[in-house]
Amino acid sequence: MKIDILSLFPEMFTGPLTQSIIGKAIEKEILDVDITNYRDYTKSKQKHVDDYPYGGGAGMLLQVQPLFDALDSIDQKNNGLGSVILLDPAGRKFDQNIAKELAAKEHLTFICGHYEGYDERIRTKVTDEISLGDYVLTGGELASMVIIDATVRLIPGVLGNNESAPGDSFSDGLLEYPQYTRPAEYRGLKVPDVLLSGNHQKIDDWRRKESLRRTLERRPDLLETATLDEKQKKWLQVLKKSQRDLN
Amino acid sequence: MKIDILSLFPEMFTGPLTQSIIGKAIEKEILDVDITNYRDYTKSKQKHVDDYPYGGGAGMLLQVQPLFDALDSIDQKNNGLGSVILLDPAGRKFDQNIAKELAAKEHLTFICGHYEGYDERIRTKVTDEISLGDYVLTGGELASMVIIDATVRLIPGVLGNNESAPGDSFSDGLLEYPQYTRPAEYRGLKVPDVLLSGNHQKIDDWRRKESLRRTLERRPDLLETATLDEKQKKWLQVLKKSQRDLN
Repeated sequence: MKIDILSLFPEMFTGPLTQSIIGKAIEKEILDVDITNYRDYTKSKQKHVDDYPYGGGAGMLLQVQPLFDALDSIDQKNNGLGSVILLDPAGRKFDQNIAKELAAKEHLTFICGHYEGYDERIRTKVTDEISLGDYVLTGGELASMVIIDATVRLIPGVLGNNESAPGDSFSDGLLEYPQYTRPAEYRGLKVPDVLLSGNHQKIDDWRRKESLRRTLERRPDLLETATLDEKQKKWLQVLKKSQRDLN
Repeated sequence: MKIDILSLFPEMFTGPLTQSIIGKAIEKEILDVDITNYRDYTKSKQKHVDDYPYGGGAGMLLQVQPLFDALDSIDQKNNGLGSVILLDPAGRKFDQNIAKELAAKEHLTFICGHYEGYDERIRTKVTDEISLGDYVLTGGELASMVIIDATVRLIPGVLGNNESAPGDSFSDGLLEYPQYTRPAEYRGLKVPDVLLSGNHQKIDDWRRKESLRRTLERRPDLLETATLDEKQKKWLQVLKKSQRDLN
């Protein structure tokens, strides 16, 4: 996969691009990332990329010229821009399905805004607007990194066998069950007996029940779309009844 | 504000902590950030901090000992841990209100997990579980940085006058209206006439209408909780009617 990032703060990416899973994917040559500082493309003598909003108001806006020219240059170098993604609160809300969708693409181009906002005309170059969630960030840099991390780890070959993704939360539409590792007791806190029992059927049932219980308690909305088998449906009825009886 | 971060990849924070708004807040001494690599606290000779899950399964889990001992050390140094935040898909979903809530605190401690997951007993030290959204990240590092960015920019004195937050999306419960800056025409794309009119009442009305229109088109769920004045309520009825008539 090729990823282009347009940012005024390329140094923000140094750590994440060399550490962790993104760094590993680059090392394995599964991923190629180029960062373009669009300040290099401004025609302003003072190297400005922002200006006051028409109609007044607080804050500065990104101008359209430096971004358009930077996109043109990336376009020529790569024979296209792939999906052009703008991080914006009005975009579709990022989730695991969008991560899967992006993981199947060959080329992603991220536009990282900054300042109060950007000139609306920038949207004419954009093919996909994505929001990380209902909160305001200073720039698109951290948001792009989050999307890149969630996406890249789904590309085959990126995660090692010991890190594989299928047991993660959301992979079956439910929250993950509680997990424990050694020691069996630490500062008085014990691992549940069933996990030490060696009985794989019991362990599997316990995990699936706990996954259901946690989802019911904390994210009941996920149950509406999760695919449950007959056993899970029966357990869910019991859990729901006990929840009702307790209240 | 004091922020402690427990992470196995401290280098991931280098860029974000020196650049952008977080770096500025540190420079202004409004914010003090310490990163603790909890690998330094492991009692394992091989410096391991992870181990296989009890009961079997793929992936490695963070052990409880290195994290507990690292937390103890931070606790002693700071005379407390403040809010101990775990980034977890089962947590409450981060939004602008949680950012406001966190911005009012004096001390935040972030636990960044990694690998497949962590020993469940780690939750006993946690006072607040937060999820960035319904997607899986490789570690808690990027998620903490997002939360820190959204939070720190709300602390008084962090943002300059030209970057101030009140016009942002979500600040009034609606998406932001489109904005434009110079030039008035670029590659054939023009700024709406009203913004060049100099008529402040008209500009204000146009912006409030566009904000409503965009919210209705893209995030109608936000309208359920937004506080609208009489003018906005009337406009919304017109926009809804035209939406119905078009479909």
